[in-house]
Amino acid sequence: MTIPVIAQLDELRSTVAAWRADGQRIALVPTMGALHQGHLDLVRRAGELAERVVVSVFVNPTQFAPTEDFGRYPRDLERDYAALSGTAVSALYAPTAQDMYGPNFSTKISLEGPALGLESITRPHFFAGVALVVTKLFNRCAPDVALFGEKDYQQLKVISRMTKDLDLPVEIIGVPTTREADGLALSSRNVYLSEEERAVAPRLHMALQDLAQVVSRGDPIAAAVAQAREALAAAGFDVDYVEVRDAETLEAVEAHDRPLRVLAAAKLGTTRLIDNIAVPRA
Amino acid sequence: MTIPVIAQLDELRSTVAAWRADGQRIALVPTMGALHQGHLDLVRRAGELAERVVVSVFVNPTQFAPTEDFGRYPRDLERDYAALSGTAVSALYAPTAQDMYGPNFSTKISLEGPALGLESITRPHFFAGVALVVTKLFNRCAPDVALFGEKDYQQLKVISRMTKDLDLPVEIIGVPTTREADGLALSSRNVYLSEEERAVAPRLHMALQDLAQVVSRGDPIAAAVAQAREALAAAGFDVDYVEVRDAETLEAVEAHDRPLRVLAAAKLGTTRLIDNIAVPRA
Repeated sequence: MTIPVIAQLDELRSTVAAWRADGQRIALVPTMGALHQGHLDLVRRAGELAERVVVSVFVNPTQFAPTEDFGRYPRDLERDYAALSGTAVSALYAPTAQDMYGPNFSTKISLEGPALGLESITRPHFFAGVALVVTKLFNRCAPDVALFGEKDYQQLKVISRMTKDLDLPVEIIGVPTTREADGLALSSRNVYLSEEERAVAPRLHMALQDLAQVVSRGDPIAAAVAQAREALAAAGFDVDYVEVRDAETLEAVEAHDRPLRVLAAAKLGTTRLIDNIAVPRA
Repeated sequence: MTIPVIAQLDELRSTVAAWRADGQRIALVPTMGALHQGHLDLVRRAGELAERVVVSVFVNPTQFAPTEDFGRYPRDLERDYAALSGTAVSALYAPTAQDMYGPNFSTKISLEGPALGLESITRPHFFAGVALVVTKLFNRCAPDVALFGEKDYQQLKVISRMTKDLDLPVEIIGVPTTREADGLALSSRNVYLSEEERAVAPRLHMALQDLAQVVSRGDPIAAAVAQAREALAAAGFDVDYVEVRDAETLEAVEAHDRPLRVLAAAKLGTTRLIDNIAVPRA
């Protein structure tokens, strides 16, 4: 089966409108390409929730700072197309940056709440860029449901909050992180890792597992976090943050009286890895 | 005919969905209530463009600064309901502030471009508040077309720009300003004017007409604007701004090589009036 590759907005809209006129539900899986098994798990789940699945591939310039890896971010639409063959995908939507952000573009979306702290410390423009592109993709594709990986947990919570706040008529679904056998969360940025760094990388997940266990026992959070930071530094990571947050609002917590999430970001060499897991209920 | 008054979002969505399933086009006329003939002209035009017209009545707190007239802004839903009887309206949507801005609300929309200068100088939060509420109303009502008065010309251009930038699937229609016989633009705030102020108020429109004439002759813009400011001050206005702008982008202009708009804001006592007109093509 050939997957239609759509670049034009009017073609996307007419394609989706025809499906909708047939009474079919539509799912959107927004991606920046460089598709790996984690994305394919999103597509599989999307296929369980809707008759039609659109995968968008767009490396969104507004979510990268000038110092970040926008230029070297892996781009290979043919490879992405091949990866999607045999999946539940109904169309691949790949707009150009010019089409997404035309002349005199003037609008920004920003969030507080779940967008505060964590990723936004080192990436202050990130969530505004994500919020903008996701709103645009929702308005272009008009899906019933959109799927995002828990790997980018803060992003998932920011998008859920924004979707509710703006009354976007889309249901947001989070999908559990896909991991390598050794626990490393799948990420398009893992290709940047050297062989040595790749061997160390699973320690990030291990540190979070240890932290989540200690926190679930009811131990003081600050001490547990300090221990996790030390373990990561000892393994060779340059730690950005290790935090325990309210699993829904992402507010900082001191108590154990609600669902919690542990989240971390750390660099190995020049590659920045992030990961997060739920704290088991005691 | 009884007009349904809808307060609940799910009722609005199901009502609109039923119309859409019948193949009917839907127009939205967003208002803050205090309906006057200018609003009714928007509803009449909406009825020419769509089979179904929703008028929303919502005094939006996010577009008022703490120092502004949110508290004393005229509210009378029964009067608004009565004013709409016999018009093209199909439903009146009147949500509560609690329903529009629930707990943990975290999202802001901001614009540059047409939102810069003019109204934003004295009302820095105004267009962010307008952009937010209009996006929410669009997403709640899902209209094909939405109508806004040219009376709030900068607002019209901000909404057009935002709708394009965010890919909101709505066509924006501007409707010419409705005026009293003496030229005063209809406004819900005109009720604040004393008898003496009401007698002076039409001078704002007269000053803009004179300015537009002078500019259309090709006279230097700065001198013409200075003259208009003097005329308004002499009539008793406290002038906020008088400006000549690109009619589309609202950029400041020095040349006469494109469609221009003259815009002004000025206070009479405590009441702030705004008005604008097109510069006639020479």
